[in-house]
Amino acid sequence: MSLEFRPSGRAVDQLRAIRLTRQYTRHAEGSVLIECGDTKVICTASIDEKVPGFLKGKGQGWLTAEYGMLPRSTHSRMDREAARGKQSGRTQEIQRLIGRSLRAAFDLEAFGERTLQLDCDVIQADGGTRTASITGAMVAAYDAFSQLVERGVIAAVPVKHFVAAISVGVYRGTPVLDLDYVEDSDCDTDMNIVMTDAGHFVEVQGTAEGAAFDRAVMNRLLDLGQDGIARLIHLQKQSLGLL
Amino acid sequence: MSLEFRPSGRAVDQLRAIRLTRQYTRHAEGSVLIECGDTKVICTASIDEKVPGFLKGKGQGWLTAEYGMLPRSTHSRMDREAARGKQSGRTQEIQRLIGRSLRAAFDLEAFGERTLQLDCDVIQADGGTRTASITGAMVAAYDAFSQLVERGVIAAVPVKHFVAAISVGVYRGTPVLDLDYVEDSDCDTDMNIVMTDAGHFVEVQGTAEGAAFDRAVMNRLLDLGQDGIARLIHLQKQSLGLL
Amino acid sequence: MSLEFRPSGRAVDQLRAIRLTRQYTRHAEGSVLIECGDTKVICTASIDEKVPGFLKGKGQGWLTAEYGMLPRSTHSRMDREAARGKQSGRTQEIQRLIGRSLRAAFDLEAFGERTLQLDCDVIQADGGTRTASITGAMVAAYDAFSQLVERGVIAAVPVKHFVAAISVGVYRGTPVLDLDYVEDSDCDTDMNIVMTDAGHFVEVQGTAEGAAFDRAVMNRLLDLGQDGIARLIHLQKQSLGLL
Amino acid sequence: MSLEFRPSGRAVDQLRAIRLTRQYTRHAEGSVLIECGDTKVICTASIDEKVPGFLKGKGQGWLTAEYGMLPRSTHSRMDREAARGKQSGRTQEIQRLIGRSLRAAFDLEAFGERTLQLDCDVIQADGGTRTASITGAMVAAYDAFSQLVERGVIAAVPVKHFVAAISVGVYRGTPVLDLDYVEDSDCDTDMNIVMTDAGHFVEVQGTAEGAAFDRAVMNRLLDLGQDGIARLIHLQKQSLGLL
Amino acid sequence: MSLEFRPSGRAVDQLRAIRLTRQYTRHAEGSVLIECGDTKVICTASIDEKVPGFLKGKGQGWLTAEYGMLPRSTHSRMDREAARGKQSGRTQEIQRLIGRSLRAAFDLEAFGERTLQLDCDVIQADGGTRTASITGAMVAAYDAFSQLVERGVIAAVPVKHFVAAISVGVYRGTPVLDLDYVEDSDCDTDMNIVMTDAGHFVEVQGTAEGAAFDRAVMNRLLDLGQDGIARLIHLQKQSLGLL
Amino acid sequence: MSLEFRPSGRAVDQLRAIRLTRQYTRHAEGSVLIECGDTKVICTASIDEKVPGFLKGKGQGWLTAEYGMLPRSTHSRMDREAARGKQSGRTQEIQRLIGRSLRAAFDLEAFGERTLQLDCDVIQADGGTRTASITGAMVAAYDAFSQLVERGVIAAVPVKHFVAAISVGVYRGTPVLDLDYVEDSDCDTDMNIVMTDAGHFVEVQGTAEGAAFDRAVMNRLLDLGQDGIARLIHLQKQSLGLL
Repeated sequence: MSLEFRPSGRAVDQLRAIRLTRQYTRHAEGSVLIECGDTKVICTASIDEKVPGFLKGKGQGWLTAEYGMLPRSTHSRMDREAARGKQSGRTQEIQRLIGRSLRAAFDLEAFGERTLQLDCDVIQADGGTRTASITGAMVAAYDAFSQLVERGVIAAVPVKHFVAAISVGVYRGTPVLDLDYVEDSDCDTDMNIVMTDAGHFVEVQGTAEGAAFDRAVMNRLLDLGQDGIARLIHLQKQSLGLL
Repeated sequence: MSLEFRPSGRAVDQLRAIRLTRQYTRHAEGSVLIECGDTKVICTASIDEKVPGFLKGKGQGWLTAEYGMLPRSTHSRMDREAARGKQSGRTQEIQRLIGRSLRAAFDLEAFGERTLQLDCDVIQADGGTRTASITGAMVAAYDAFSQLVERGVIAAVPVKHFVAAISVGVYRGTPVLDLDYVEDSDCDTDMNIVMTDAGHFVEVQGTAEGAAFDRAVMNRLLDLGQDGIARLIHLQKQSLGLL
Repeated sequence: MSLEFRPSGRAVDQLRAIRLTRQYTRHAEGSVLIECGDTKVICTASIDEKVPGFLKGKGQGWLTAEYGMLPRSTHSRMDREAARGKQSGRTQEIQRLIGRSLRAAFDLEAFGERTLQLDCDVIQADGGTRTASITGAMVAAYDAFSQLVERGVIAAVPVKHFVAAISVGVYRGTPVLDLDYVEDSDCDTDMNIVMTDAGHFVEVQGTAEGAAFDRAVMNRLLDLGQDGIARLIHLQKQSLGLL
Repeated sequence: MSLEFRPSGRAVDQLRAIRLTRQYTRHAEGSVLIECGDTKVICTASIDEKVPGFLKGKGQGWLTAEYGMLPRSTHSRMDREAARGKQSGRTQEIQRLIGRSLRAAFDLEAFGERTLQLDCDVIQADGGTRTASITGAMVAAYDAFSQLVERGVIAAVPVKHFVAAISVGVYRGTPVLDLDYVEDSDCDTDMNIVMTDAGHFVEVQGTAEGAAFDRAVMNRLLDLGQDGIARLIHLQKQSLGLL
Repeated sequence: MSLEFRPSGRAVDQLRAIRLTRQYTRHAEGSVLIECGDTKVICTASIDEKVPGFLKGKGQGWLTAEYGMLPRSTHSRMDREAARGKQSGRTQEIQRLIGRSLRAAFDLEAFGERTLQLDCDVIQADGGTRTASITGAMVAAYDAFSQLVERGVIAAVPVKHFVAAISVGVYRGTPVLDLDYVEDSDCDTDMNIVMTDAGHFVEVQGTAEGAAFDRAVMNRLLDLGQDGIARLIHLQKQSLGLL
Repeated sequence: MSLEFRPSGRAVDQLRAIRLTRQYTRHAEGSVLIECGDTKVICTASIDEKVPGFLKGKGQGWLTAEYGMLPRSTHSRMDREAARGKQSGRTQEIQRLIGRSLRAAFDLEAFGERTLQLDCDVIQADGGTRTASITGAMVAAYDAFSQLVERGVIAAVPVKHFVAAISVGVYRGTPVLDLDYVEDSDCDTDMNIVMTDAGHFVEVQGTAEGAAFDRAVMNRLLDLGQDGIARLIHLQKQSLGLL
């Protein structure tokens, strides 16, 4: 099969162009615009000097995330969740995923009774908004913790692993990396993978939207994801000046 | 390692005792009590003679699911979601999973403009309520469609594949099948797998709650799940008198 | 008139078959399945080691109740209240009734600053779910308090009176005891009565859904209820091994 | 016992001063201010030229009621239900009671596919607001229907029975008629009775808030209520110029 | 132009008949019925012996307001906000305006850690309900503070300025004072003005609902408002016996 | 007084640097990023091929607006309105203002039964977000209508007037134009003005947060606003290539 079967002309294992812009907005302790092709997400990290009730007095911190889409970030306008008075199941699922993934990246016991609050807001969507959110939020969180270090509040950024995320899927019968919207709308299987810089899995969420898929496809998808995430973590570290 | 390291004394690849009781309540077209050890879920399937707005006039059916837990199905009482005025993110995530999994099992174009509504209500929880819900709902849905066949409304049960679900996880460093509550509370990784009777994947949702896990563990978990699900689908078919 | 005019063939003053199953589920301090003919309600009693704000520091306890129906406990499926985001007026009315009735049964000043939380969840409905809830919750509450006695927390079960509840109504012109669904849907008057083992009234709630009823009918309904409740309280005490 | 044991000095069977002011506000088809001593309720009746979905096309009408209290109608200010975002269980219970009671008064099949909407808003509370609401709403509804007659829409006011309501209770051991707030706060039993001009019962809702009460007390309470309601219906008819 | 071009026959700078009835209901510390022609609003002022969280321990008081309309205060019945489960944007806008206006009237640092809660409930609407609410609430608040003075809690009513409010607008091309409903429904511009007894502005909210208006019209509207408010404040002070 | 008394060093009548970026995001028919100094708002305009119920069949269009702030657009993080389940009173007030202002700009009868939906989302806040939203939304709306013209759906952009908005206020005793956050937090009076390119008023909303202000100040504020808006409308037209 020609490599050009993907609508974007990308190779099966090719990421979209990734751009990470730090200090994107002024007020947040960490603020990153992540662009993955036409998908654009503002990820901010805010430090709150308290923890939720269930952690009070335990001497450890917390990290949590919220996710939203601007109503016209999408092809046709979506209802504004604030106006509808509730977050959709999809939104809640995504923000729970972001929170779990980032809690795997940082040592919650190493930054005191504080909460790191991540906000991932999609301003333009073209597929892969949840994985872009995780990849961008990692950098925003790192920046926010760096600020605590600079202010002398903690001794070091409490990072355990870098984490990044990517989607893989089966598009027209072929496993491919980093689905864009056109591919995502027309794929049989969509899997989101979150991994560490050690190449270990934090989350795997795969759904056969069309035909169920066999073990060989599963293995190929995991290979593609593992490889893509390694490149994303390289970009995160470059962006932070750690390489 | 001794086989007896699991609190329940089960082997690493051993399911809990499974019991499927059909016609558990009177009114629903399909009604199944599924017991997986001490986890007990009532799964009902109701036929509604209409489809949601987005499908009207398209000549096809729909299948959807809701999930709930009785407030004292758990060790300590949970708030009643109806009283709190909203379903938690966890509940929404689970009912979306059940719906997607069962939509993979049936041919939505083969039962007219009807909705099959599944309700999975946990009356006693001991780990694995979402996978038990899927496994039980398969049988309840089959019974509901059988009733449509008996009433002459459709020619055959519109089943594409049987699906069942099970959890696997890494407990004290060892991959095991079918986590109960004690194991689940203390495990590093928890993965829910939904597969068809052809051995294909419908859903894979794995989370490293403690340490991230490597590819070898991933492979072992998929093996355990694949094997457990084959046994569950055998039990489903036995219960329905299809074997 | 023949005794057999009731659809069930019961005599006008005949209760349905009543079954009380204690320890129905594992986790709750008290857990009772009450079956009144085809009406089945799980009543659990949970002890919470605190009281609502308005009672804090007053040295007394509290008792409250919630009520729900599984969506397909009824002939046609009802919306799930948790999904709709609010409890109906009917639900609230019923759970307020259960709470008031059971607060009449126990001495709130005799079990410390604790809350007894009752949950009555209907898994199959055939009329009389609110009265079955009260009758079953009495036994569940007794069991929960007994556990506090066993654990040495309180000296005795703080019971003032046993209470039970039953419906009476005017079906096809004749006052009858314990309406089932078919009768309830077609009756002129429906009255729910809660009484103590001393034969005193705790609650009387009568509604003329069709024709208003005169004082003679009122008297006959009260007679039927008084007699039925005496038998129910006998069954409660038997079930608890107090007779 | 002296007649003066009641804080208000009223005899045990004495109503408070009742005043019915028709055309109290300008816009509603029926608008009545009912004053029962210091309890003041504005009852409006509005005609809506449609029926709820479940009655569409059946050729009959509907009647429904809503109830509210101004936040400072009471001794200490209550939260505004609109600001809290929901009606309390008490409010819903009361408005359901008002609706059922008034549906017993009118022939729903005799005024076409219209809805009579009653609004009972308490501007000053001193006990007995729900029964005052019913008694006042009867007059407001009659006025609204009279306007339909005047406009030639229907031939006659579709009244089946007049209904009125009153509370009775056991205050300091003695059954009394028409509890005011001071008595209500300190009574053992509180019962609301709704009856027709034929002396038949529409609703009986009695609650033993303190000691449960015996059959003799029940009978005395029913006597007091029956007598009080006869006088209230006389006042309603006088107010409407029907006597 | 003839003075009689206004539907009510009023001169362009003529207020409707204003009536202020103090002590309108019994329970509130201040309770005023304000009637501006056919617009009638009950304004109550309640003293709460605490402040919102953001002011705790700061030694100062707070003043806040809520606004509501009885469902049938208007020409056609509006939905009850408590039943709909939320206050409209219009309601929130109005109650925020009332709160800000009255906070300008009183010295929040001169009555201790207390909250003055204003409730403005429209029982009959004929235009100008928000300005009537402000004008009436001023008197109710004054009365409530007077009661604190009488009880010896504070030394003097903590009034800084009297405030009152009125609407002005462009009706059929001519600026007029105090729009009633008929005029308001058919006007090009509607402006609400809140001023102090020193003739200073507290709030100006003008909206061109039809044609935008020029500076000359703006000036004329401000003149009309200034003059009307002076007369309203005179009436407020007369009503309070301060003149 | 020195011109440099403003924290930003701006002259009293000086706007912040304004930048309008059209086609800021891909999907919306109109999409503008407006930057007023450090305030940044994304304004999108979406065409919906239907109108709200109250306009159906009337042959005219509708225009409405929603407003939101990213949680960390502000100095300290605000709660996400979608997560809290409701829009604040402030949000509703602002989006009502934007909608009214833009409805004054366009001829609703000249673009068929369509709705122009504006979304103004603040990504960075430094004062003046509501006026920036109006000024930016004007351009986004113009672009969206231009697209309808290009597609041949309507003959011309249905603009009646250009509108723009600006804040003015009294800062440290002096009337100034275009308050930034530091000034806004510390000003006595804040007024938002919306005007047309003909120099006519669409909206005036002034609030004395500290001392009430006299007519001379009012006049000066209106002068400043009038002048600033003329410059803003010039920039809008330049940005659209109309000058």
